[in-house]
Amino acid sequence: MPLNFTVPPVSLALAQALQAKIDQKTKPQGSLGRLEALALQIGLIQNSLSPRLAKPCIIVFAADHGIAAAGVSAYPQAVTGQMVANFLAGGAAINVLARQHGIELLIVDAGVNADLPAHPHLIDAKIAKGTRNFLTHPAMTSIEMLTALHKGADLVSERHQNGCNCIGFGEMGIGNTSSAAAIIHCLTGIALAECVGRGTGLSDDQLAHKTAVLQQALDNHPGITGAVEVLGTFGGFEIAMMTGAYLQAAELNMLIVVDGFIAGAALLAAYQCYPNILDYCVFSHVSHERGHQALLNYFNATALLDMGLRLGEGSGIALAYPLLQSAVLFLNGMASFDEAGVDH
Amino acid sequence: MPLNFTVPPVSLALAQALQAKIDQKTKPQGSLGRLEALALQIGLIQNSLSPRLAKPCIIVFAADHGIAAAGVSAYPQAVTGQMVANFLAGGAAINVLARQHGIELLIVDAGVNADLPAHPHLIDAKIAKGTRNFLTHPAMTSIEMLTALHKGADLVSERHQNGCNCIGFGEMGIGNTSSAAAIIHCLTGIALAECVGRGTGLSDDQLAHKTAVLQQALDNHPGITGAVEVLGTFGGFEIAMMTGAYLQAAELNMLIVVDGFIAGAALLAAYQCYPNILDYCVFSHVSHERGHQALLNYFNATALLDMGLRLGEGSGIALAYPLLQSAVLFLNGMASFDEAGVDH
Repeated sequence: MPLNFTVPPVSLALAQALQAKIDQKTKPQGSLGRLEALALQIGLIQNSLSPRLAKPCIIVFAADHGIAAAGVSAYPQAVTGQMVANFLAGGAAINVLARQHGIELLIVDAGVNADLPAHPHLIDAKIAKGTRNFLTHPAMTSIEMLTALHKGADLVSERHQNGCNCIGFGEMGIGNTSSAAAIIHCLTGIALAECVGRGTGLSDDQLAHKTAVLQQALDNHPGITGAVEVLGTFGGFEIAMMTGAYLQAAELNMLIVVDGFIAGAALLAAYQCYPNILDYCVFSHVSHERGHQALLNYFNATALLDMGLRLGEGSGIALAYPLLQSAVLFLNGMASFDEAGVDH
Repeated sequence: MPLNFTVPPVSLALAQALQAKIDQKTKPQGSLGRLEALALQIGLIQNSLSPRLAKPCIIVFAADHGIAAAGVSAYPQAVTGQMVANFLAGGAAINVLARQHGIELLIVDAGVNADLPAHPHLIDAKIAKGTRNFLTHPAMTSIEMLTALHKGADLVSERHQNGCNCIGFGEMGIGNTSSAAAIIHCLTGIALAECVGRGTGLSDDQLAHKTAVLQQALDNHPGITGAVEVLGTFGGFEIAMMTGAYLQAAELNMLIVVDGFIAGAALLAAYQCYPNILDYCVFSHVSHERGHQALLNYFNATALLDMGLRLGEGSGIALAYPLLQSAVLFLNGMASFDEAGVDH
């Protein structure tokens, strides 16, 4: 089942000129560390010596998971819909952090298991009222998965048409660390136990139960390979929507800011179909959910932040965003040695 | 030579109430990681369940160092004064980063070896035109050192009177990594070679020369112990001013955001006189200047950021500031489980 995106590598045409501009700023060469690498990457993505971050946006995809019925989360499934209401009321962590940095926040019902009241700021993209329980059935049909991919992609296209060139994706979905763990295990070969973490806060016994459930689910679906098939079998609607959103963002030459564990699983599926996507990605933080560091290693990526977060919602994106801004601002705003009359 | 500051430990009176407020927010307990620890620390410093960051400020202290004559820097001494002009013109990295975050920036001539033109935004606190070369003489007299300490303290008092409750200190001074390395070695016992780094960008040979110069300087001043004596013998005017500034900020119950290697050396002197000062400190970043990680270990501190910076100027403070803002904002702005009607 081939997908139909186009993700070329980023052009290196301006690499030398960008590096020269960076090196002429009034600072010892390399002394701004990773900000310099970010400035170079963003300049390359935008193919500009004066890149700008325009209308930054975080899209939060919410959905429920049939696997929640197997007792893999510390919270009841109803919390997914309750948290959507909290997002819409502005009371969640991501609301606070997005407001802080002037980041637009979109909330998407990708498949919450509830009839959510209409709300002017809620985007209805519901595929179904949650996935099937992948302990016994594939989580979604092929049609559902492709619909989710394209709804995610369409939302990104809309933001791009609106002038956004910097985007990230967050999620909310009770049970979705189980889905992400299964995806990461299947697509990377990292041992299942290394992919399964405490999610919202499982005890040792609950963690052992979660791992056993996932092992059973894997045993019940032998021979599933390939990003698309794995996503359909073990995925969530919010995860599939994020995968489509990543691919569209790369196709549109946007800077992609990657959140944590679940966002990483969605990116993994996109990456295995279109490896060039990493050219467009910045990894905002390493989550304390077990498995995320291993996934970053798989991507050969180093996260910008290590704040011990394990919340999702796109919270790491928002925290890292000012660092991206700093990279662009120093490139555009600092004086050169010649301009400032500083010896070098 | 006792100093005359008062730095009590931070009151823990509100610790339980603050932690309860944090735990009632709509997120799994602990899922905001280090932001939660920051919120607690800032709440304790301000003795408030609703702390606020008011009029954040970075003071950049600039001064020259006699040791520069021994060829320990990749840049000529004239760069100190030239960079002060760049700060005043708004073209340096710290200008860009402070503007980004609405942080007030003060530039102080603590002892630049030049007649700097008067400028409405330049604070003249010049002790002398650079320190003496500590290869052969103590860097400063006792009077000079105490004057520097108190000028630094006075500047902080002024900011505090102006409503600032969150402050950090940056520096500029060709040669000052040599001064900082000697101070850190003397006051912690960390091997000299572990304290000496490449500064603005020394080659291997230049680094070996710098280390040899510092070893000779240490040999020429045997038996120097204690923060005050070490600061006077090997310090810089900007470093001594920062030491006084740290102590005054703690005395005034301000949140102190610590920059990198040189800022750390100044804090070390303050800490050895008043160990409670660490209650008020957040370590913004770990510098790539050799010795900084060891110093952080000595403080038993973990920096917020590891961005590969080695610039000084207070750049790490500015980059970390939005994380401190985030901590305060989630504590004040997020809904509780009860307010949002979310199960827990």
